[in-house]
Amino acid sequence: MTRTIALLLAAATLPAVPTAAQTPPAASSQTFAPLFAAEVERARRDVDASIKAGINVPVPKDPGGGFTHEQHKRNYRIIFEGGQLFRLTGEARYRDHVRDMLLAYADLYPGLGPHPAKANQNAGRLFWQSLNDSVFLVNAVQGYAQIRDALPAADRKRIDDNVIRLMARFLSDGSPQVINRIHNHATWAAAGVGLSGYLLGDRDLVDKALLGLDKSGKAGFLRQLDLLFSPDGYYAEGPYYQRYALQPFVVFAAAIAANDPGRKIFEYRDGIVLKAIRTAIDLTHDGYFLPINDAMPDKSLRTEELYHAVAIAYGATKDPAFLSIADWQGRTVLTPAGQAMAADLAAGKAKPWPFGSRLLSDGPDGKGGALVLLRTNADPAGPLLVAKNTVQGMGHGHFDRLGWLYYDETGAVVTDYGAARFLNVEAKHGGRYLPENDSWASATIAHNTLVVDEQSHFAGDWKAGEKHGTRQLAASLEGPTRYTIAEIDSAYKDVKIRRALLLVEVDGLANPLTLDILHGTGSGRHIYDLPLHFSGHIIDSDIAFDRNLAERPVLGKANGYQHLWVDGTGTKAGKARLTWMQGSRFYSYHMLPPAGARFIVAESGANDPEFNLRREPALIQRVEGAADATFVSLLEPHGAYDAAAETVVASSARVAALEHRQEKGADLVLITLVDGRRVALAVADDTTADAKHSLTVDGRTMTWTGPVGRLDLAKTGAKK
Amino acid sequence: MTRTIALLLAAATLPAVPTAAQTPPAASSQTFAPLFAAEVERARRDVDASIKAGINVPVPKDPGGGFTHEQHKRNYRIIFEGGQLFRLTGEARYRDHVRDMLLAYADLYPGLGPHPAKANQNAGRLFWQSLNDSVFLVNAVQGYAQIRDALPAADRKRIDDNVIRLMARFLSDGSPQVINRIHNHATWAAAGVGLSGYLLGDRDLVDKALLGLDKSGKAGFLRQLDLLFSPDGYYAEGPYYQRYALQPFVVFAAAIAANDPGRKIFEYRDGIVLKAIRTAIDLTHDGYFLPINDAMPDKSLRTEELYHAVAIAYGATKDPAFLSIADWQGRTVLTPAGQAMAADLAAGKAKPWPFGSRLLSDGPDGKGGALVLLRTNADPAGPLLVAKNTVQGMGHGHFDRLGWLYYDETGAVVTDYGAARFLNVEAKHGGRYLPENDSWASATIAHNTLVVDEQSHFAGDWKAGEKHGTRQLAASLEGPTRYTIAEIDSAYKDVKIRRALLLVEVDGLANPLTLDILHGTGSGRHIYDLPLHFSGHIIDSDIAFDRNLAERPVLGKANGYQHLWVDGTGTKAGKARLTWMQGSRFYSYHMLPPAGARFIVAESGANDPEFNLRREPALIQRVEGAADATFVSLLEPHGAYDAAAETVVASSARVAALEHRQEKGADLVLITLVDGRRVALAVADDTTADAKHSLTVDGRTMTWTGPVGRLDLAKTGAKK
Repeated sequence: MTRTIALLLAAATLPAVPTAAQTPPAASSQTFAPLFAAEVERARRDVDASIKAGINVPVPKDPGGGFTHEQHKRNYRIIFEGGQLFRLTGEARYRDHVRDMLLAYADLYPGLGPHPAKANQNAGRLFWQSLNDSVFLVNAVQGYAQIRDALPAADRKRIDDNVIRLMARFLSDGSPQVINRIHNHATWAAAGVGLSGYLLGDRDLVDKALLGLDKSGKAGFLRQLDLLFSPDGYYAEGPYYQRYALQPFVVFAAAIAANDPGRKIFEYRDGIVLKAIRTAIDLTHDGYFLPINDAMPDKSLRTEELYHAVAIAYGATKDPAFLSIADWQGRTVLTPAGQAMAADLAAGKAKPWPFGSRLLSDGPDGKGGALVLLRTNADPAGPLLVAKNTVQGMGHGHFDRLGWLYYDETGAVVTDYGAARFLNVEAKHGGRYLPENDSWASATIAHNTLVVDEQSHFAGDWKAGEKHGTRQLAASLEGPTRYTIAEIDSAYKDVKIRRALLLVEVDGLANPLTLDILHGTGSGRHIYDLPLHFSGHIIDSDIAFDRNLAERPVLGKANGYQHLWVDGTGTKAGKARLTWMQGSRFYSYHMLPPAGARFIVAESGANDPEFNLRREPALIQRVEGAADATFVSLLEPHGAYDAAAETVVASSARVAALEHRQEKGADLVLITLVDGRRVALAVADDTTADAKHSLTVDGRTMTWTGPVGRLDLAKTGAKK
Repeated sequence: MTRTIALLLAAATLPAVPTAAQTPPAASSQTFAPLFAAEVERARRDVDASIKAGINVPVPKDPGGGFTHEQHKRNYRIIFEGGQLFRLTGEARYRDHVRDMLLAYADLYPGLGPHPAKANQNAGRLFWQSLNDSVFLVNAVQGYAQIRDALPAADRKRIDDNVIRLMARFLSDGSPQVINRIHNHATWAAAGVGLSGYLLGDRDLVDKALLGLDKSGKAGFLRQLDLLFSPDGYYAEGPYYQRYALQPFVVFAAAIAANDPGRKIFEYRDGIVLKAIRTAIDLTHDGYFLPINDAMPDKSLRTEELYHAVAIAYGATKDPAFLSIADWQGRTVLTPAGQAMAADLAAGKAKPWPFGSRLLSDGPDGKGGALVLLRTNADPAGPLLVAKNTVQGMGHGHFDRLGWLYYDETGAVVTDYGAARFLNVEAKHGGRYLPENDSWASATIAHNTLVVDEQSHFAGDWKAGEKHGTRQLAASLEGPTRYTIAEIDSAYKDVKIRRALLLVEVDGLANPLTLDILHGTGSGRHIYDLPLHFSGHIIDSDIAFDRNLAERPVLGKANGYQHLWVDGTGTKAGKARLTWMQGSRFYSYHMLPPAGARFIVAESGANDPEFNLRREPALIQRVEGAADATFVSLLEPHGAYDAAAETVVASSARVAALEHRQEKGADLVLITLVDGRRVALAVADDTTADAKHSLTVDGRTMTWTGPVGRLDLAKTGAKK
């Protein structure tokens, strides 16, 4: 009995709730807040349909997306929901259905060996990879806990012994290569094993989950909390896996808080669990996770993991900003935490989430670099400049150090391909990562950062990349000139790269400008490519492209270059411009590349025998045979297209000129608008905060302290 | 005074309203329904901003999208809105601003010659084409009418004489080549001239508008009503221009009803004006107009034209289904008609629009063919099969006789490119139609219909096409087997084409199947190409394609073929399949082409020097050297992908086999599902409604009356 109560506490993160098995409330006596009532209804439909269909626990056979895979996923969901429904309604059919299903697993599970569709050494029993088995266990334990005390002892023993304990043993002692890693698969395993331990009163399982199989603390959940998140709650693999990893972290943390309150798990490492949840929310644009590293771009806050995380975080903090996230999600979890949160949302307690600029340090010690988010306002869909100055991100990391992205009200503007994968679509390699994930999606040329000699960073070796961080030199998160400056000298043997990205607000321009100053500094002669992957339809350019109109070659042979069709190449002296249109807005990309540079318009999709790639445009600035190269680029969003009203304004750029020079230890960039106003921006080589600098611009003296200076000049040259 | 009242009546189509100029209600005393209140607020913002900015009536210079173009558009909107606001609020500043703006036009207009950016003989004065001048006048008269009686006589005279009358004369006697046409440009001109006539009490202008410049009735508004719409209210140029044309039709009709009630204009030609509005709404999917012929695919019911049309139609009919359209639009017009409609919407009187299957006859006499819409339910975003068995559609018509489209909850599935144009985007040829509109968008190969010998229908000559209708042989709009059968023998000299398209509902399948039986019957040897343009990402195919992986050639030299990149070609004996994914759904296209056929996977975008084309996939079934060719194809939507829940169901097709044979004067198609059930569908050559037919299928006798028979066979062969 005590154990069941503890698990209920875990799910609720509340001091006390009545014991479900003893005093189940009648369904009719309950008044749920709308969000929670909808969950109860949804779960009733699911579980009632499952009751009607009967128990279906098939012998495992199919990979992701196949029938047995999806059926076992449906089953753990039914176990979870059925258990919660029994707690909420006391209706016996829910208890009986969950019991019958678990008994069917008790018959099946002990006889299973490695899954027949296994792809590597981490085969599961029910699923092709043991990760899914862990997810099964995390869900099944939470559902089973709600009915366990209401079962006859014999049934309880069969399920305890033949399902829960066996699965927990398989995922702990039976899978040391999984649970002892520092990796999200290990977190899921630890959560499953730990929840099982609490339920069964098996301290051995709990300790192995918390401290690793040898209980030394060198592995296990606590070590994962130490190593997988930066001090700012940034997850090493990036937002997509941060989302995925959150569920076991928060669910297990809630269980630890309830069962081992002395551990003060929500205070552990300066509150790292709650930081991780907040940071996950910050890592979205318009509710969608930034698709850095291996990531599906259609993942939003509307996922099971975040329903759990938001409910548990709200329970732990009562921060009303979480309520606005729940409101956007339109969903919650069936647990007491979800129930309490839905009630507060219905009571009108929600406050907007304070989206803002953030510097999210990377690495366990926060010294591996940073992911920098620059926003000009708190609108979830407002302008967002992302600079990826992180560590590698382990095996799912892409080779895109110093890369950048840009989002605004039209969605992703400067884009990341994400992963080459069709999740759970069986015809696409069983829903797993596709070959093009390595050959294209993770390659440097598929990102918005410098490529040297057509090679990916770290020669495409993620383990090499994992050894090197990125140096975040400076950043400013507020004011009209937000910026980040970072560098790396380990991505290529011979070349150091430094990049300053500035998000610049200018009076009279409705949208901020992004100024990019990138230096490649090397020895010997190199090919330098700076790609820009963008979303939209090309409107025009002042570059005279030599077009491949009737036969389309590929750009290169390897490292992702083989996947790029070349639409055309061209040159232009001085500033060059490409303008495209997306949604209701125009974007002009102004470039001052090194002397002798060529511009290449390309599109992904070449050498793609299975039609695995999306076809997306890119513009590459290329210089050949140079030791050093400086690329100065400016992204200018402008104008508006209104399909309904048939009106167009400002379809041409407002930036008329772009100049760059290096003097007195600084890069000076002059932006001239069509109305004659000028903005001078200076980025000093010395990035220390208290260094003082001075330059002369248009006969005026410009002085500043710290890395970045700015001077706005009126048309006449008078100070504004 | 009388004239002003009449125009108010026109806008309201109500029996009586107070005279604005005499008894303007105080703003604070008004309680508007929310939809209308929002319009008033929006107009106040617009007009107050215009008042603050001051009058700006520039000398005409720019083409569409340029500054002077957009400014004159803004101005006529301000005149319209300012006039209505004066009527609604009585606030003098609105009257004065509209007056001042019209006086500025009175200074400018008399001195104007043909617009400097004119593209052809139909140059306007204020705009590059006179069409926009007509739109200006239609709007300006409606706004001016609200303030006219409140002006000093001298101002009134200047505006009457130097703006309204001069513009009306320019658009009537000054532009016979426009107003005497049977064309939407002529309707706008007639509406502008006619409204001016009513306002000025100038019967000559009114009669010219109604009956043509010679007042014979061979041209003018009434003749346009006779000739531009079919008896079912289908507009000859298609949905996009139907939308565009509606505004002058309905606004002028409302004015005629008010000023010449004896004409009973809303009963004219069996109520053609109201039919045209209803048909326009039926020609949408999920609120967006079907992009047949020259059309921008982003055009929805949310446009100014439809705000007017819906308000006036509701006023004339009180049909509550119009209210649900207004609700979806979220907008209305500032006129009394909009005000009254908004009040009824707020009163909860709306009923859903009864979207259903329709056979819309084409041609003035309804004998030119038909546009057939087959729907399985009334959901605006539900399944919709479109068969284009129409006449040419005049100069904006595409060469796509017997073409088809398919829409469902994921949007456009089997697609129409629409027009090659960036409306009002100055950098794209001034926002006009692009060269690729002729070379690609209107070509037969860009559509889902048969191409013979790589030539467009009617050799790409729209005037030749205009002389020939399509023969709509049969159709059934209800029941589980909806269909259309049509043929044409004039598109090619040597080849007759007949096509049956069936929308088939099958028990246990969540989505209807589309069966396509197409016969090309010719003499000599021909190349037959049957393209399918679809939206989505290719998932897999059982065709072994020979892929152009590293160099991509084009398909042909001319008639649109030069714009197709070839990704691969392949063959397969028996049924072949291509599966793609769009949104949350999978689509399998099953094909039984003629013996020896090849399959070509292609993409638009070749030979596109200015990046004017979107890049979209197509699959072409090709047979060479044949006299006749029969293509049997089946589109099967299936399965579901849920990104949030990470679940996929039924990603593989449920159709296992597709067989076709011709016997006893019929095409017999057998569809076998993976569960063993079979559906037999027969289409008789004799399409008369009372002809009786009989066939033997699996030893069972199948009898039916009329063109199409169906027999569902259970797994055992027993009748279901």
